[in-house]
Amino acid sequence: MYGYTPSKDDYLTRLRRIEGQVRGLQRMVEDDKYCIDILTQVSAATRALQSVALGLLEDHLAHCVAHAAAEGGEVAEAKIREASDAISRLVKS
Amino acid sequence: MYGYTPSKDDYLTRLRRIEGQVRGLQRMVEDDKYCIDILTQVSAATRALQSVALGLLEDHLAHCVAHAAAEGGEVAEAKIREASDAISRLVKS
Amino acid sequence: MYGYTPSKDDYLTRLRRIEGQVRGLQRMVEDDKYCIDILTQVSAATRALQSVALGLLEDHLAHCVAHAAAEGGEVAEAKIREASDAISRLVKS
Amino acid sequence: MYGYTPSKDDYLTRLRRIEGQVRGLQRMVEDDKYCIDILTQVSAATRALQSVALGLLEDHLAHCVAHAAAEGGEVAEAKIREASDAISRLVKS
Repeated sequence: MYGYTPSKDDYLTRLRRIEGQVRGLQRMVEDDKYCIDILTQVSAATRALQSVALGLLEDHLAHCVAHAAAEGGEVAEAKIREASDAISRLVKS
Repeated sequence: MYGYTPSKDDYLTRLRRIEGQVRGLQRMVEDDKYCIDILTQVSAATRALQSVALGLLEDHLAHCVAHAAAEGGEVAEAKIREASDAISRLVKS
Repeated sequence: MYGYTPSKDDYLTRLRRIEGQVRGLQRMVEDDKYCIDILTQVSAATRALQSVALGLLEDHLAHCVAHAAAEGGEVAEAKIREASDAISRLVKS
Repeated sequence: MYGYTPSKDDYLTRLRRIEGQVRGLQRMVEDDKYCIDILTQVSAATRALQSVALGLLEDHLAHCVAHAAAEGGEVAEAKIREASDAISRLVKS
C-alpha cells in the first residue's frame, strides 16, 4: 500500500494516454510532419508526465511522508530528505 | 524535407525508447513499486523528451529558420516568431 | 519559528548574492554586452533562485509539514495540500 | 547594436523590478514570513527572470541569428549552435 494505490487505475489511464502521445510523435516523425507541430506535441507529453509526477508526489507526501513524520525520529528525517531529493530532480528535469 | 529529416531514424529510436520508459512506468504502478522509484523514472522520461525537443529545435533553427532568414522579410519574421513561441512553450513545460 | 529560521543568515546571504546578480544583469544591458552572455547570467540567477526555493521547501517539509503530519487530521491534510501546490508552482515556473 | 538594443529601457525596467522582488524576498526572510508565502514570491521572481530570458532570446534570433543566417556558411552554423546551447541552458534551468 502506497499513497498512489487508491488511484492506480487513474494513473494507469494517464500513463497509457502518454504512451499513445509518444507513439503519435513517432508517426509524426515518420510522416514528415512540420517540426513545430511535433514540438507542440512533445511539450504536451512533457506536461502530462509532469502532471503525473506532481500527483504521485502529493500522494507520497500525504501517505508515506505523513506516516513517517507521525513516527518522528530518523525515519521521518530520511523520508523527508528522500522526498526533497525527488522534488529537486523534478524541478530540474 | 525538414531540419530533422536526415536524423529521422535517430529520433525514432529515441522516441521508441521513451515509449518503452512510459510502458515501464505502467508496469511499476501495476506492480506497486515504491513511489519515489516511480518518480525517478518519470524524471528520466521527462528529460529524454526534453532532449528530443532540444534536438528538433536545433535542427529547425539550422534548417527552416536559417532558410527563411536568408530570404528575409515577413517570411523570416514569421518563422522566428513561431520558433520563439515554441521555445517559450518548451521552457514553460 | 519556521523551518528556515535556523538558516536565516544563510538564506539572506544567498538572496543578497542573487540581488547582486540581477544588478549585474542591468549593467550588462546598459553596457551593451552580447545577448548570449546576458542569457548565461540570467540562467545562473534563475538556478540560484530555484536552489533557494528547494532549500526553503525542504526546511518547510522537515518542520511545518512534519509537525502538522504528527498532529494528523485536517491540519495535516491542509498543510500537505498547501506544500503540494507550492511544489507544483515551482515545477511549472 | 544587438537585437535587444531598441528595447534596452524596457529590459532595464523589468530587471529593476526583479531586483526589487529579490530585495522583497530578503525582507520576508528577515521578518520571519511564512515559508509558503516566500516560496510564492520566489516562483514569481523566477518566472519574471525567465520571461526576460525569452525576450532576449527572441530579439537575438530576430537580429544576430537572422543576420548570420543570411550570410550563411560557418558563421551561420556557429551562431545557431550558440543559440541552441543557450536555449538548452534555459530549458534546463
